[in-house]
Amino acid sequence: MRQTFDDHADPAFGREHLPLIRAEMARQGLDGFVIPHEDEHQNEYLPDANERLAWATGFTGSAGAAVVMADKAAVFVDGRYTLQAQDQTDPALFERLDFVDGGVPGYLERGVRSGQIIGYDPRLHSPDSLGHMTNAAIRSGATLKPVTVNPVDAAWGQARPAQPAAPVTPYLLDHAGEDSAAKRTRIGAELAKAGADLAVLTSPSSIAWLFNVRGGDVIRAPLPLGQAILRADGSARLFLDPAKVTDDLGAWLGNAVTLETPDALPSALSEMKGQRVLIDPAQSSAWYFDALQTAGAQVIRGADPCALPRACKNATEIEGSRQAHHRDGAAMVRFLNWLATDAQTSLPDEIEVVTKLEALREATGALKDLSFDTIAGAGSNGAIVHYHPTHRTNRRVEPGQLLLVDSGGQYLDGTTDITRTVAIGEPSAEMADRFTRVLKGHITLGRIRFPAGTTGSALDALARQPLWMAGLDFDHGTGHGVGAYLSVHEGPHRIAKAPSTVALRPGMIVSNEPGYYKTGGFGIRIEVLQVVTPASDVDGGERPMLGFEVLTLAPHDRRLIVADLLSGEERDWLNAYHARVLAEIGPLVEPAIQVWLTEACAPI
Amino acid sequence: MRQTFDDHADPAFGREHLPLIRAEMARQGLDGFVIPHEDEHQNEYLPDANERLAWATGFTGSAGAAVVMADKAAVFVDGRYTLQAQDQTDPALFERLDFVDGGVPGYLERGVRSGQIIGYDPRLHSPDSLGHMTNAAIRSGATLKPVTVNPVDAAWGQARPAQPAAPVTPYLLDHAGEDSAAKRTRIGAELAKAGADLAVLTSPSSIAWLFNVRGGDVIRAPLPLGQAILRADGSARLFLDPAKVTDDLGAWLGNAVTLETPDALPSALSEMKGQRVLIDPAQSSAWYFDALQTAGAQVIRGADPCALPRACKNATEIEGSRQAHHRDGAAMVRFLNWLATDAQTSLPDEIEVVTKLEALREATGALKDLSFDTIAGAGSNGAIVHYHPTHRTNRRVEPGQLLLVDSGGQYLDGTTDITRTVAIGEPSAEMADRFTRVLKGHITLGRIRFPAGTTGSALDALARQPLWMAGLDFDHGTGHGVGAYLSVHEGPHRIAKAPSTVALRPGMIVSNEPGYYKTGGFGIRIEVLQVVTPASDVDGGERPMLGFEVLTLAPHDRRLIVADLLSGEERDWLNAYHARVLAEIGPLVEPAIQVWLTEACAPI
Repeated sequence: MRQTFDDHADPAFGREHLPLIRAEMARQGLDGFVIPHEDEHQNEYLPDANERLAWATGFTGSAGAAVVMADKAAVFVDGRYTLQAQDQTDPALFERLDFVDGGVPGYLERGVRSGQIIGYDPRLHSPDSLGHMTNAAIRSGATLKPVTVNPVDAAWGQARPAQPAAPVTPYLLDHAGEDSAAKRTRIGAELAKAGADLAVLTSPSSIAWLFNVRGGDVIRAPLPLGQAILRADGSARLFLDPAKVTDDLGAWLGNAVTLETPDALPSALSEMKGQRVLIDPAQSSAWYFDALQTAGAQVIRGADPCALPRACKNATEIEGSRQAHHRDGAAMVRFLNWLATDAQTSLPDEIEVVTKLEALREATGALKDLSFDTIAGAGSNGAIVHYHPTHRTNRRVEPGQLLLVDSGGQYLDGTTDITRTVAIGEPSAEMADRFTRVLKGHITLGRIRFPAGTTGSALDALARQPLWMAGLDFDHGTGHGVGAYLSVHEGPHRIAKAPSTVALRPGMIVSNEPGYYKTGGFGIRIEVLQVVTPASDVDGGERPMLGFEVLTLAPHDRRLIVADLLSGEERDWLNAYHARVLAEIGPLVEPAIQVWLTEACAPI
Repeated sequence: MRQTFDDHADPAFGREHLPLIRAEMARQGLDGFVIPHEDEHQNEYLPDANERLAWATGFTGSAGAAVVMADKAAVFVDGRYTLQAQDQTDPALFERLDFVDGGVPGYLERGVRSGQIIGYDPRLHSPDSLGHMTNAAIRSGATLKPVTVNPVDAAWGQARPAQPAAPVTPYLLDHAGEDSAAKRTRIGAELAKAGADLAVLTSPSSIAWLFNVRGGDVIRAPLPLGQAILRADGSARLFLDPAKVTDDLGAWLGNAVTLETPDALPSALSEMKGQRVLIDPAQSSAWYFDALQTAGAQVIRGADPCALPRACKNATEIEGSRQAHHRDGAAMVRFLNWLATDAQTSLPDEIEVVTKLEALREATGALKDLSFDTIAGAGSNGAIVHYHPTHRTNRRVEPGQLLLVDSGGQYLDGTTDITRTVAIGEPSAEMADRFTRVLKGHITLGRIRFPAGTTGSALDALARQPLWMAGLDFDHGTGHGVGAYLSVHEGPHRIAKAPSTVALRPGMIVSNEPGYYKTGGFGIRIEVLQVVTPASDVDGGERPMLGFEVLTLAPHDRRLIVADLLSGEERDWLNAYHARVLAEIGPLVEPAIQVWLTEACAPI
């Protein structure tokens, strides 16, 4: 079993750890200290050693922050984590605040006094986020002070887990689809075009993609934690802990890439005087910018040059993703069949649901890891957007409830992520109405055609419109980018309310996952992954358009669909999708399940 | 007659004026010079004296730029003006380039050589736009050099018109709805909250709004050109040419506002050492930032503090706009009746169309100005998005054509802007299909409900979706903000593809104007103004939603509507709108026209 159901953190963490952190703050002369979720690698998923926010507060979500003052503290989360933060943190110790109400900068503006000294660890903040904090501190008259020793690390002391050192291995061409040398030449040419001599790369996803390697430093994503310097001529220096370096890695990387230890990185930066260095202020921490400035480098602030090419999957990666989705789809269909049959009579609890689904994915024989810990929420647990069952919260599903299951697998040929919402027993009219509205938005976003240059933020409202018209909405993005056997949340593109300047381009994989959550009642989410493709021509069409090919193949629960709420076009789309599920997944599953799938995919 | 049909510029301008500009460039040691459309006031509409781009190139659109090099030149326009720029500029002298392909920065990156010196007038560029130019010049190795004497002004010499000096008059409370002192106190408090001692205001719209005055320095908008300094305590200094100051202005402004001459502004800025000064880098030119830096002021870069409050109209302004739209709607209905009856048999030319409409607006007795020169395009002229007929281009409308008329009036109680597209004779099936798709997008955007925090860029795709699905699109924004007896194009909000961070708020007036343009064929645009309002509650709705109240009242041409393409909800919306037009405008027009209107507004 890859997943556990123990609480990784405890609401008591705040009571136990805040005094230790405050003692360290006092020792360093700090009135406050900012604890972001992000670590040195600015990555969403962290090794245990870097779960500083969880250790300080008890909150284990994948995004958030805290500010600890001598006499008070606050935790900041987004709408996905509102309920979870309330559950995991101690209200006597922490104000629980929403990012949309100003976040850490808002707190630094209104929650601190003039003259107070607020510490931050420059290795953990991007210059962009530090800029917002600095502006806020100017307004309140507080001073932001970089620390050398992070008070959380000092307080954590010996109890802190070791840094990970999983082996870094080649990611072969039959999955990567493009040679690392070719990638480096192409990105190097982009550097030259941007007027840069070299780029400093700190994103684990970019390093994995550029060098065609995979690692295991972070749970749920095959990422190697490290840094790299790429020169405009395509040669590179790769900084990796020697403990991670496997025997065949040097030969795989070739002569144009030198392998060095992380210790060598500061001196490498210090030798960049006069060099034009591209580095991403949204991705690399302020520490790098300080180091480059000290060295006298000419810093060019720009997007990580690997981010966009990495996001636009090549034909091999897309075909790999299709294969992974067929395999994963068959496991999902077996799971949904179990839910629709055995589990309707002998009702499982949430942990049994998760265990069953993991076993079915494991049985494919190809599972490298899960994409993330499975979200399985029955009844009101489904309304907690990123709920993971633990022994403490585990609940048996009951007739009349909805069960929301959001899960995914990491396979060598691709990363999957799927959410289905299933009725246990008879759903209420309200549940079906809400489900159908979510489905309408999902379909509208699935079948949309759009011109080149369109961003995900321009498409977001299409998925929300049926909810908005009913006075409803959901508090998370509609879609996130997904890596190719990399991170399941991977930009630079996404489909969300927040304004984006990144246009959707052919080859980008993005989720389509509108939802609806009734606090204390039930949760609904419908998610597939889809890849941006050139849209087929239509009669009289004048402009080339882009569209989506759905990758994820598994049926939607027909008992939750109010057919009359669908337009003719929506119904046609749904029936065509279900026909495709049956045609492509049917042959992969056992005959009895095939029979069930035929019914589950019958036209509406 | 307020409008003329002479060409304001000539394609020969380039041939006549480029040599003069190049001689001035050579005298100043410049290899190139950037000529933006924007003037010292960063305003869309310019006094004749500041129409530098038109004088240099012949192009008279309301947005654009040029770069003049010793041996070549380029004009940059957006999609609205592609055809117009081709018509108005000499292809032997100018490359005609699109803003989306990099604009002036792209040209400075790829079109100039390392070592070349490119001049710019710091009074005409915002720091934001200058920043993009500077980054581009770094990439090409060129140097940007601020000029003291603008080479265009020097070349123009005695022929250049004088600066305007229209009287500045009070805008009374029964239209403004809020006392200037109250506005200044409220904005002053915002300054204090932002940590600023004072703000430098250079937007003519903001000055008009804040001081409750109107002027006439710019055609088609009652704007006074000037500058102001607002202190956090609500007191202010207003810099206006004494020639504009009317007798009663001092008393109207009161003791807390001192009237000064524009000459006093540089020294006012030079005395701001140590002061925390808020100024808008997207609105105020680089010259101000240079002056404040030289003075040793602490510059706080932030949005013009008047922009958002000005955009959120108060109850008096909204009621005024309703009144203006009733008056204007009656004139439009008379005009549409004329087009549908007399003009279908005795076919007018475009200038006659414009003349007729202006006469009908003038006959209201309340017209202060037009909002802009009327766009009236028959047949293929309709496909030129911002086409204004001139004696050179004037065309008689013909049976089987569409006539696109986009117009508006400036009234003391409000600014209007309406587009209707009318079939002359029998429209083709293609015309009706395209019109109906545009109408579907228009209706979807008109009836949408959306949560607080939603930006116009999030709603834009709703109006394009029916076109996108057919492989079509249009190359302009879907909606622009509109002032209250101020500029007809007025932010900070808009509905467009370009990402925006400005949420739509109650009281904001915005146009809803999708279109479709078939080059060489016909043009379609459907436009109303609508105001953001709290949406009425719906059964089961959980969140407060915003919506739109349509202000503009005039029928759509039913002969262009394919009823079968509309959903039931769209049809209901259209019928309810037409019923409202009949109920509210019917009583204002002559009995014969009322009879026609009843038919024009019959349910579909």
